[in-house]
Amino acid sequence: MPAELEEIFHPRSVAVVGASAETLGYISTISEGKLGDRLFLVNPRYQEFLGRKCYPSLLDIPSPVDYVIVGTPARVVPDVIRDCVKKGVKAVHIYSSGFSEIGEEGTRLEREIVELAKGKLRIIGPNGMGVYCPESGLFFINGQPHESGPVGFVSQSGTFAIYSTSAGELGEVRFSKVVSYGNAADLDAPDFVRYLGEDPKTRLLLVYVEGTRRGRELFQALKGAASRKPVLMLKGGMTPEGARAASSHTGSLAGSQRIWEAVFRQAGLIPVGSFEEMMDAARAFLLCPPPRGRGVSMASVSGGVSVVETDACVEMGLQVPAFGEETLQKLRGMLPTAGTSLKNPLDVWPAFVSGALPAVLETALSDDSIHCMILEVQMGAYYRDLVMTEEYLKGLAEKCRELQLRFGKPLLISNPPELDWGFAYRVRRIFREYGLPVYESVRRAARALYHLHRIFLRYGEEAFPFHGS
Amino acid sequence: MPAELEEIFHPRSVAVVGASAETLGYISTISEGKLGDRLFLVNPRYQEFLGRKCYPSLLDIPSPVDYVIVGTPARVVPDVIRDCVKKGVKAVHIYSSGFSEIGEEGTRLEREIVELAKGKLRIIGPNGMGVYCPESGLFFINGQPHESGPVGFVSQSGTFAIYSTSAGELGEVRFSKVVSYGNAADLDAPDFVRYLGEDPKTRLLLVYVEGTRRGRELFQALKGAASRKPVLMLKGGMTPEGARAASSHTGSLAGSQRIWEAVFRQAGLIPVGSFEEMMDAARAFLLCPPPRGRGVSMASVSGGVSVVETDACVEMGLQVPAFGEETLQKLRGMLPTAGTSLKNPLDVWPAFVSGALPAVLETALSDDSIHCMILEVQMGAYYRDLVMTEEYLKGLAEKCRELQLRFGKPLLISNPPELDWGFAYRVRRIFREYGLPVYESVRRAARALYHLHRIFLRYGEEAFPFHGS
Repeated sequence: MPAELEEIFHPRSVAVVGASAETLGYISTISEGKLGDRLFLVNPRYQEFLGRKCYPSLLDIPSPVDYVIVGTPARVVPDVIRDCVKKGVKAVHIYSSGFSEIGEEGTRLEREIVELAKGKLRIIGPNGMGVYCPESGLFFINGQPHESGPVGFVSQSGTFAIYSTSAGELGEVRFSKVVSYGNAADLDAPDFVRYLGEDPKTRLLLVYVEGTRRGRELFQALKGAASRKPVLMLKGGMTPEGARAASSHTGSLAGSQRIWEAVFRQAGLIPVGSFEEMMDAARAFLLCPPPRGRGVSMASVSGGVSVVETDACVEMGLQVPAFGEETLQKLRGMLPTAGTSLKNPLDVWPAFVSGALPAVLETALSDDSIHCMILEVQMGAYYRDLVMTEEYLKGLAEKCRELQLRFGKPLLISNPPELDWGFAYRVRRIFREYGLPVYESVRRAARALYHLHRIFLRYGEEAFPFHGS
Repeated sequence: MPAELEEIFHPRSVAVVGASAETLGYISTISEGKLGDRLFLVNPRYQEFLGRKCYPSLLDIPSPVDYVIVGTPARVVPDVIRDCVKKGVKAVHIYSSGFSEIGEEGTRLEREIVELAKGKLRIIGPNGMGVYCPESGLFFINGQPHESGPVGFVSQSGTFAIYSTSAGELGEVRFSKVVSYGNAADLDAPDFVRYLGEDPKTRLLLVYVEGTRRGRELFQALKGAASRKPVLMLKGGMTPEGARAASSHTGSLAGSQRIWEAVFRQAGLIPVGSFEEMMDAARAFLLCPPPRGRGVSMASVSGGVSVVETDACVEMGLQVPAFGEETLQKLRGMLPTAGTSLKNPLDVWPAFVSGALPAVLETALSDDSIHCMILEVQMGAYYRDLVMTEEYLKGLAEKCRELQLRFGKPLLISNPPELDWGFAYRVRRIFREYGLPVYESVRRAARALYHLHRIFLRYGEEAFPFHGS
């Protein structure tokens, strides 16, 4: 099976059937990509589109076509599939919706196309975004990055597939392949999980599934993938009401929460509770060395943040160990005792103001009980404007990057944006330049670290792509 | 006791001892405020500061002084207290740190000032930000809003006190009084909770406590406050490591988690797990009518978001009921069935694009099983740039405001900022203009709604300040 999918993800030639203003949103990036003259457009209404010749039908294309993207109205799709069969196409991605997700009539249509394709070609979709594989020039929406990375994503949601590969903060993650397979009329989660589980270019696998008709196979595929690489999984429809929503969304039977919890455990998956949590972990996985233990040090200007976020860290499975005496001695030499707490968490307002912060971070990271660090870059507006200038932030980011590299311990930034959106944006821009991930809260950073530590425990240091440069 | 505190929060005259460049950060706003010539500055090193006469000592001030703010180094504080006693001052706020939070020596100093003050004047602090009461012209940091509102906040953390009253998104909340009382050498949480519990200008009470030496009294004060008005409480130091951090921060004994859980229950408090969660609820409390039931409708462009966030809503105690047949009929008339889910949650990409969204929201809100609504204003970058222009967002915000008012059901906005910070900022700015709170995720909005519903159940509609104008 993976050989068959390898051909689908790396087609020699691609045709878009239904190329039009309506489908422009997902074809102009493909059109500008590396497919070049191996991309064909089909639409009987046009002679030309996007500066390319438009063929009246698939059968008019003079060369063989491996992979077809269909964006026509649903009722036309059976005819397109018939043409695909005649043309000897290997796989077709049906972008169109209007199939089993809308009820009986759509289900009949879906059954019809499955019958037409059976044994002749494979179907991705309908009602999904299809395949993103920058290496092959496949994109499912405009504006997606052309660079590849080590993360794979099997997503039953088109939106999560789009969001994950969009620009913005999430854009720090780079993907080998992403697939959004919608109603899974033919190819389904087990197929894609097995393929990406074996794909050597995918070092971390993300999975979002609402349900499948092939539960046993999905379990085996997940278990197989997790035996080779870390798999983070978000299961939609865990509650009865979520399951009803999943049924409207992709016509899926979501299955019971208890069964899925057993699947997570027995397949060795890392469960996540939200899309943000999954992406938070993926960003840290790409940008940071592994945390070799659960001991986190936290530095902020605030005792309150220290106390509440220490609670949060401990509740999610990390530790916030007190520093050893040697570390404390050094810290006492750098900072006044009044108005600070030096034992970890570090409540060190004066360090943020005096310039002692880099030395404080260095001292904390040199403590053997500390395996990772979260630095909250935020303070009350009045002092923030005085202290945290562009130059200050750049100097701090450079130092953080250097420390992460030198100690081989992950250093994550937290910045709650609610206080000042302009400042929040600046922090993200600057720390990103220096390759450090920024999170909306200490607890989001902490949860990413917790997942990274679990990955380290099972898969070791070699699983991590971080090499510091 | 409340009478005594009423005097402290509404002093006839105020002196700042230790007015200097170091304390400038918190005195220039007081100086510009309504205290006028009832504010006196004391510093033997200056003749004049901030355009005001500087007195060499408290005793040189020609008129009586009710309230003194002390920002001198810790070692000088006992002398200042002696002067306060001689001057007949009623209360002193010690901003300075360097007391029990730094260990034995500081504890001795703290005990000394408590002895000096006993029976003569009351102390707030040391190591806290003091009192924010715009009605009286009291501010504890520059740049705080001068307008009052119906929320009170008793905070053992100075940072939380500052953040809550800062500009930015959190600035949507307006406060009657905020107090940050640090080490609680004299006046402590029970005193402030009792006072704000009885204060008619405080309709919602927020409490952040790490610990107290007067646990029994705090319990009684919380119970008394909660018998009159909703009390949201964040307890710092619930885990052993958090408790250790609390001890470094404010010298507090945090107490066991089990005891505090019993306090929450028996006093009828609404527990929150983070500062953000507390502020999220306070914003919705101010800006929205009460949700009269647990039924939420959710609208977004995404099936994946719908499914996962439905799970989250249900797990936190809300319901996502399926619409009645009449509602479904109406929705079917507005939207294509393909690519949408109309049963609730609403996965209605076409509505966001076609202009049908206001009618869809109106229809959802008119369903009897729906008591509140969350609208996710976000979509993939390509279509977002085409569709969600400034004009589009303004029109949508205006409609949302009108619908919230007409149906008397809260309508909250969700916008995950990770995709585009510029867009996130625009959404916040625009919806804020129309008085609608924006949250970083559906689940943060949902949790705020859950808290509001609990408030409605116990305190009724009259508890809510919302009046729609």
